Amino acid sequence: MTQTLIEPRRASPEAVVDVTRVAVSTVIFSLRRDPGTDRLAVVVPLVMRTRDPHEGQWALPGGWLDATESLDAAASRTLAETTAIAPSYLEQLYAFGAVDRSPTRVVSIVYWALVRPDEIPAAPVENVSWHDVAELPRLAFDHNHIVEYALWRLRNKVGYSRIAHGLLADEFTLAELREVYESILGRRLDPANFRRQAENSGTLIPTDRFRTGSHRPARFYRYNQDVELADRGPLASERTPENESSTS
Amino acid sequence: MTQTLIEPRRASPEAVVDVTRVAVSTVIFSLRRDPGTDRLAVVVPLVMRTRDPHEGQWALPGGWLDATESLDAAASRTLAETTAIAPSYLEQLYAFGAVDRSPTRVVSIVYWALVRPDEIPAAPVENVSWHDVAELPRLAFDHNHIVEYALWRLRNKVGYSRIAHGLLADEFTLAELREVYESILGRRLDPANFRRQAENSGTLIPTDRFRTGSHRPARFYRYNQDVELADRGPLASERTPENESSTS
Repeated sequence: MTQTLIEPRRASPEAVVDVTRVAVSTVIFSLRRDPGTDRLAVVVPLVMRTRDPHEGQWALPGGWLDATESLDAAASRTLAETTAIAPSYLEQLYAFGAVDRSPTRVVSIVYWALVRPDEIPAAPVENVSWHDVAELPRLAFDHNHIVEYALWRLRNKVGYSRIAHGLLADEFTLAELREVYESILGRRLDPANFRRQAENSGTLIPTDRFRTGSHRPARFYRYNQDVELADRGPLASERTPENESSTS
Repeated sequence: MTQTLIEPRRASPEAVVDVTRVAVSTVIFSLRRDPGTDRLAVVVPLVMRTRDPHEGQWALPGGWLDATESLDAAASRTLAETTAIAPSYLEQLYAFGAVDRSPTRVVSIVYWALVRPDEIPAAPVENVSWHDVAELPRLAFDHNHIVEYALWRLRNKVGYSRIAHGLLADEFTLAELREVYESILGRRLDPANFRRQAENSGTLIPTDRFRTGSHRPARFYRYNQDVELADRGPLASERTPENESSTS
């Protein structure tokens, strides 16, 4: 098919602005230890864009909402298709809809989740790479802004809920828990204060097992499953907005 | 224009399902004292639908997203157009996108806000009426579900933030504050316990003024503006997702 000069392949913004499309994107937080610095970093998977707009730039995993699937289902599907990651739950984060966030009008419903390092597919996935959130390149669209917002929510949440659980093994030492908090908050925490607060929080149960090795033995703890997860999010509760009529 | 039998006025679900439209709706919570029972009730404004689908049913105020406005701007505009209410801020609540929530495919970005009774327009607005959330009729679409979810969030928030402030005058007695909590939570609170917790919260400042009347004088309190509003929501912070490129 030939294109005439009168009908350009991409319509001008004025011509397409009355069509609003819905996309979903997902921010997946995990942890990775930098082999060089031995620092534990918060990382997110990004997908290299292979077409315009923003061809050649990194972007959050996502895609278009299919008209026959719920928002939750679209988030899970597009995440699996692009990254092969399948978290046990995804939580809706925010709908981003600034007029100029994309060359055409796109409202993006953003989901987020935490995955433990062992939940990440071992085999590399084409065009996908994990990036330290502290050292992100310039991402496509408003995705830097979205990651920043998701981090802000993560930092807020870690203070009053067991959200770090989503990044840890079932049993962990207090030093390991503190390191997770430090990597999320981006600052050092006083070990003695942290230990006191953690032990007094009522959310941790000491086990009879210890990590042994080069240091003195460190007790393993686990989260108390009886304590209700504070504000884990609507998708974890009975009042899931889409419970009643989800397609998934 | 005439319609043929072959082309019905409303397309079948199969025919329209590839078009997804974006709407905004808003849940406005306020308080109203029932003259009969003297009970303080949480109330929301609803708009009578004057066209299909759901003609003649009550619905949340809202409307279609205009392609040239941000989500925030659309929420403010449609709320003002339908109810003449203009809250100082609207917070995004959730995006509802179940496939069958409407005869055509509609993703609704829902906002919410609290308004003090004195912020409600004095003159009645056509087709608008305020309803006790405990006694809602069957609403259009999934709007009962949306109100229920917004209430769940309100009840969660009232426990760890100064959210009741949005419903009270600048100065209030502890009995008035307790009554707001009771109306939101839907249960009685022990006055002595409530007073102790409120006084120890660090968020209230006693004034030198007292409410006098038929009972013994009750001290007026105000909120300590220096205490950061816990999780007031993204729209209240510098990290507003749409800050950078909002049209409003």
